[in-house]
Amino acid sequence: MKQSIELFDTTLRDGTQGEGINLSVQDKLLIAQRLDEFGIDIIEGGWPGSNPKDEEFFKKAKSLRLNNAKICAFGSTARDINNIESDANLLALLNSETSVVSIFGKTWRLHSQRGLNLTDEQNEELIFRSVEFLKRNNRRVIYDAEHFFDGWKDDKDFAMRMLKAAERGGADVLVLCDTNGGTMTDEVHSIVTEVCSIFQTPIGIHTHNDGELAVANSLAAINAGAVHVQGTINGIGERCGNANLCSIIPNLKLKYGFTTKTEINLEHLTSISNFVFELMNLAPNSRAAYVGKSAFAHKGGVHVSAVLKESKMYEHITPEVVGNKQRVLVSDLSGQSNIRYKAKELGIDLSGHKELSKKLVNFIKTLEHGGFQFDGAEASFELLLRSELNEFTPFFNVLDSKVNVVYDNKGQSHAEAVLKIEVDGEIEHTAADGNGPVNALDNALRKALLRFYPEISLIKLVDYKVRVLDEKDGTAAKVRVMIESSDGQESWTTVGVSENIIEASFQALSDSINYKLFKFQKQKSKLTA
Amino acid sequence: MKQSIELFDTTLRDGTQGEGINLSVQDKLLIAQRLDEFGIDIIEGGWPGSNPKDEEFFKKAKSLRLNNAKICAFGSTARDINNIESDANLLALLNSETSVVSIFGKTWRLHSQRGLNLTDEQNEELIFRSVEFLKRNNRRVIYDAEHFFDGWKDDKDFAMRMLKAAERGGADVLVLCDTNGGTMTDEVHSIVTEVCSIFQTPIGIHTHNDGELAVANSLAAINAGAVHVQGTINGIGERCGNANLCSIIPNLKLKYGFTTKTEINLEHLTSISNFVFELMNLAPNSRAAYVGKSAFAHKGGVHVSAVLKESKMYEHITPEVVGNKQRVLVSDLSGQSNIRYKAKELGIDLSGHKELSKKLVNFIKTLEHGGFQFDGAEASFELLLRSELNEFTPFFNVLDSKVNVVYDNKGQSHAEAVLKIEVDGEIEHTAADGNGPVNALDNALRKALLRFYPEISLIKLVDYKVRVLDEKDGTAAKVRVMIESSDGQESWTTVGVSENIIEASFQALSDSINYKLFKFQKQKSKLTA
Repeated sequence: MKQSIELFDTTLRDGTQGEGINLSVQDKLLIAQRLDEFGIDIIEGGWPGSNPKDEEFFKKAKSLRLNNAKICAFGSTARDINNIESDANLLALLNSETSVVSIFGKTWRLHSQRGLNLTDEQNEELIFRSVEFLKRNNRRVIYDAEHFFDGWKDDKDFAMRMLKAAERGGADVLVLCDTNGGTMTDEVHSIVTEVCSIFQTPIGIHTHNDGELAVANSLAAINAGAVHVQGTINGIGERCGNANLCSIIPNLKLKYGFTTKTEINLEHLTSISNFVFELMNLAPNSRAAYVGKSAFAHKGGVHVSAVLKESKMYEHITPEVVGNKQRVLVSDLSGQSNIRYKAKELGIDLSGHKELSKKLVNFIKTLEHGGFQFDGAEASFELLLRSELNEFTPFFNVLDSKVNVVYDNKGQSHAEAVLKIEVDGEIEHTAADGNGPVNALDNALRKALLRFYPEISLIKLVDYKVRVLDEKDGTAAKVRVMIESSDGQESWTTVGVSENIIEASFQALSDSINYKLFKFQKQKSKLTA
Repeated sequence: MKQSIELFDTTLRDGTQGEGINLSVQDKLLIAQRLDEFGIDIIEGGWPGSNPKDEEFFKKAKSLRLNNAKICAFGSTARDINNIESDANLLALLNSETSVVSIFGKTWRLHSQRGLNLTDEQNEELIFRSVEFLKRNNRRVIYDAEHFFDGWKDDKDFAMRMLKAAERGGADVLVLCDTNGGTMTDEVHSIVTEVCSIFQTPIGIHTHNDGELAVANSLAAINAGAVHVQGTINGIGERCGNANLCSIIPNLKLKYGFTTKTEINLEHLTSISNFVFELMNLAPNSRAAYVGKSAFAHKGGVHVSAVLKESKMYEHITPEVVGNKQRVLVSDLSGQSNIRYKAKELGIDLSGHKELSKKLVNFIKTLEHGGFQFDGAEASFELLLRSELNEFTPFFNVLDSKVNVVYDNKGQSHAEAVLKIEVDGEIEHTAADGNGPVNALDNALRKALLRFYPEISLIKLVDYKVRVLDEKDGTAAKVRVMIESSDGQESWTTVGVSENIIEASFQALSDSINYKLFKFQKQKSKLTA
């Protein structure tokens, strides 16, 4: 029977070493809670000896209610052989009061000799006594052998001797770290195999992605006998990042059939990935394996028609197993089957409308050729479709609009929009100010529509993205505006394209309001029916 | 001696299957040119049978002047055994007039039987005769065995029989495709080893990244005997993407010591990666192995001080080898040294200006807190720095400006900018039209400045990016505008931030013009000196 694997998450420690990553104590607590619910065994929370924020985290983490996970504090071996018991770094580890601690020691002579000016004997002694001290204080000790693979390739005897010092000190897990991330998969496999044949203590693996091999290297180590794996959610970390647990875990469970020490809720995988991206203020990686928005998205006509017959033809797993879903994209590469599939998702059966789907395919190709993109703007696509089916007519017509922006050399600016719209034959002529021209138009439109459709006060804009098409045309280029709106319950995205950014924004704004009014109307007619 | 590896790039074909990817014919031609300069052997340009854009590409590609690379057209096996010679898809391949063609055939019974309703014999015959027909027409034929690994695991005999049909037809390379991207690295290694022991024809590998293993799987196949590798620049492609050539190539060359059939200019790696992201209108992946902006960026205090002693302590290769560079990031602890590091890059020695660097750190922190970002906008940073050093004063002052945008319900729009500027005490009051408000302002500014600084006619805008900060504020949110400009020789980026998109754009525009005028001035004073 296969060994059960221990999952060690370092999103809160190594993850925050990534460029542009900054987590507050509150963010860290929220992530820890989610990691526990997901089924992670050990959560490395930070380096209490290095900064006050991490110290605060460990204080507050004590009041988290965790099901399975254990919080772990990270630090280095002591600095001075003669002061082990009073080493500030080791004491900070004990003061964090976690039952598990991880410490790293030097395993590459370049670092111990050149970086720290230590003789081999001194380095060995520091490792042994630091581990032994923590064990004596009743901690479970995870020993991270920093630069293990580089150290081994440089001088195998040296690397082994340092690892043995940690084992002699009583370390519970010996983690082989590919700190620089440049080791190849076959090397990892053969080195871990050899280490596992020598040591009794459980072996762990910690890899980085500098060769784009962190996931493969972790799996190779586990197949060679490692039983503990360290990584981060979404693979975020120093430089190119750490091993991505969002890929390692499903590969282990679904492809190799490994069990994990605590039960993993694999169907939470996509949502924990998005949650962590969100708190890190990063755009989610749409192409991420398993959890990305595009991971089960089909675009080419050949793929789409096959997937509609039998999804395993172009899907390596069932997306729902990891909490993701299949998507069919509408683009100029798509054929009629894409359009029909999208329509079906919206509850519209186009199978009897062959001519219409053909017409729609051509219409969409023309629009996309002009810079529209319905890939992400499914609300605009739905309006287009329902309008062709005569199910939808716009809730208002814009008769005229003007926007003025004035600013002076003191940086004072003023934007005003004047708008004339028509609803059911009634004219509303109004004006509004705003921070900028688009905001002024947005305000004017809402003001004009409010007396006809009071429900629009629920609509909030949550994202506003501008992309320049034909960038070589500079400021004269066409722009595509995508707007994401929400009513607190659901969110939807609309698109507008024009050489005039204000016009493009206004198209997307109008679509957004029309979309929601259409949904309200449908809901109402359901309730009265 | 190790076999020489053939590099096959499918950025222009499989790469465009990625969500949101859309390349014009012109984009494709530009990328093909760069791939050739980089040293790629074979460039798969598209599927001429599937859409008119790809047909046009092959027509125009004939006039590209390529050093080493060969353009390759992609298609499928014929549809009907009785109509091989008149199969539209095969004829489109021949009509594209490339010396190399690639065709894919079904290797998994699920696809041939369930997808295409073919008996095993029919499928085998289609593969054999399609390959044989193309060979008879003097093409080099690369045969892509679609779903080879899934097909093999389902029924090894079936998969082998289909591959043998392609070999019998005369295929020059047999490419084993992991089309669904879900195969594990050890499986790839053992299957490719077995296939290589049976076939005489050179074996190739084509992997996808659905398990985040595409790079590892490609390397495993090559180590098992494959001599041809397919992938895309940046790994962009259907779903989670294709194997990333930007990681495979340096791993092959630098880690394993493989040679490639044509010589690769590895120092162009980072620039080709950025170029392709740019043309695909995607934000570059800063965490990408080898080529990412963060790939050699150091943040943690321990890492930074070690790297300053000896960079190989935390860098697996020398960044310059792949055209990248080491970076030290701003952090709360290393503010001043970072500013000094950046100033030094611009040729400014701040070591004697301790007070000034302190002041700059605080000033930049305040600006960055307000949404500015100097990471990518080094021209704006340089102006700021030189202005603090009293080396730079703006070349013009804007006294007053107005922008009007009017549009009606017929979609007719009109934008006009009125601008009053002052240069050396002289006032210029002018106006200009534009496609949109920013374009109108851009035109007015150039018009006003031209008589003072005729050299500004050289400045072209090459990119214009807008990012919304505090997205929850919707259209009232602050926006950051980044503008990239070029004078045909070099390009530079500037930044502006405001709640008013027009004002933010105008700040970035002004910086761009000021920056270049400053450079012209320096050049002139050098020439006269």
